[in-house]
Amino acid sequence: MAKLEQLSCSKHFGGKLTKYKFRSTALGDLDARLNIFLPGNSVHGKVPVLMYLGGLTCTEDNAAQKGGFMRDAAAEGIAIIFPDTSPRGAGIRGEDDHWDFGTGAGWYVDATHPQWAKHYRMFTHVTQELPQIIEASGLPVDFSRQSILGHSMGGHGALVLYLTSILSGRNTYRSCSAFSPVCAPSVVPWGIKGFNGYLAGGVEEGRDKYDATTLIGKVKGPVNILIDYGTADEFKHQLKPDLFADAARKAGFDESQVRVRGQDDYDHSYYFVSTFASEHVKFHAGFLKA
Amino acid sequence: MAKLEQLSCSKHFGGKLTKYKFRSTALGDLDARLNIFLPGNSVHGKVPVLMYLGGLTCTEDNAAQKGGFMRDAAAEGIAIIFPDTSPRGAGIRGEDDHWDFGTGAGWYVDATHPQWAKHYRMFTHVTQELPQIIEASGLPVDFSRQSILGHSMGGHGALVLYLTSILSGRNTYRSCSAFSPVCAPSVVPWGIKGFNGYLAGGVEEGRDKYDATTLIGKVKGPVNILIDYGTADEFKHQLKPDLFADAARKAGFDESQVRVRGQDDYDHSYYFVSTFASEHVKFHAGFLKA
Repeated sequence: MAKLEQLSCSKHFGGKLTKYKFRSTALGDLDARLNIFLPGNSVHGKVPVLMYLGGLTCTEDNAAQKGGFMRDAAAEGIAIIFPDTSPRGAGIRGEDDHWDFGTGAGWYVDATHPQWAKHYRMFTHVTQELPQIIEASGLPVDFSRQSILGHSMGGHGALVLYLTSILSGRNTYRSCSAFSPVCAPSVVPWGIKGFNGYLAGGVEEGRDKYDATTLIGKVKGPVNILIDYGTADEFKHQLKPDLFADAARKAGFDESQVRVRGQDDYDHSYYFVSTFASEHVKFHAGFLKA
Repeated sequence: MAKLEQLSCSKHFGGKLTKYKFRSTALGDLDARLNIFLPGNSVHGKVPVLMYLGGLTCTEDNAAQKGGFMRDAAAEGIAIIFPDTSPRGAGIRGEDDHWDFGTGAGWYVDATHPQWAKHYRMFTHVTQELPQIIEASGLPVDFSRQSILGHSMGGHGALVLYLTSILSGRNTYRSCSAFSPVCAPSVVPWGIKGFNGYLAGGVEEGRDKYDATTLIGKVKGPVNILIDYGTADEFKHQLKPDLFADAARKAGFDESQVRVRGQDDYDHSYYFVSTFASEHVKFHAGFLKA
């Protein structure tokens, strides 16, 4: 298995924020980067972990630098993993032509379209490869106490990875939260573009496998989901939180299991994310430390 | 007087983070940008204010996005102004040749060298022009309750503007704090380059007018200064906090008036700044709300 190579390390809130790269098999033998925050208490033993998925155009750095998550993660004694949002440098034709498709826009799927299927496999990268390589590295992270969250495209990713893990019976994550998530990608321009590009079966394949509003309707048993979006979100037409909330209600989930909150006058930016970062960390801490 | 033109506005911790530009007279008729955070309680009346000065290569955005100041500023009911770090687009020969001189590196001086004297006047921009134009705009900021802080080159700026305001008898600021400040610019490469470039009298003029370690030796009467630096700071040879601390002790200031803290293993980054941002906001709140 490839090894994590440390690129930088900064002390942060008494813990450490370290950037690594490694040769990723899941992404077709390309270098992948990530940041990991380890709280100070991790020197005494393994700690629970949050997987944070970024939005369009982001790298592993944006939320680490602007998200405001580490103050509470340090206080709660929780690690955070910040993966990148797509492969980099795959050399695929058209990869860098759009800001919302290709580089920086992996949509957390495993591509099935022949043009993208070798490299664009962020689903496997996040769900399998990263936990395996981090565990093998000996870092003090306990993946049996893992939750997931994300922003925008990464909010979509968090919801989809969470719901998929329940439907598969793996139950990888104890809880899921999302800021301004793309809740119904198969009916909005961003998601349609991504699914038609990456998936051989196009939007139909996407609706079936990677659409949170479809998936929540198939889930039986308990879920722990918190969603916040801003009522002044400039991309609200891409998000459709109401469709997801409706589907959750129809599936029998009440506010104690699926909470969708419209936050007055907030927009889509990290100024919004960081405002509610503390609440999201505490929400997850309630499950991770139970 | 020029008017503030709003470029963007995001709700943030119940308040508002707004980016403005205006035609700056102090900077020789160039557009200047700034961010202002107004806490939610400012809808009820004027609030105290922190002036935050950024470091080399930064703009008005870096600390607003990465500094982690607004959570406590919102809780304390304090505004924060984030100016840019230099004029932009002055068109001076050599302006963009170095990352530590020219654009992004105004050093908070009023240049006296003929080549730079028309535009590089960040001292006047921060101390006079910004308060005047913000006050004239009607924004609910009370400049009679103002403190100042900054990072690296901006930490130098905060110390120099604070000490100068005491020496001039204006007493503009109630307190001053700095992260990793350049404490003795006239004896380190960054500062020598800046002073020799911007000032007709070179380093000698800089030592006299813009060197915190010189200025603290001239100050009589009370000061309220907090400095944090990381013991693993990769630019520590540019900072010289010990020289400043020694000069403060020789001038008769004890720990209650000048506190210089080396924080174990922290570096020069915003991961360091954001770790101690809360403590700095609370330090200033003690004076601003007294």
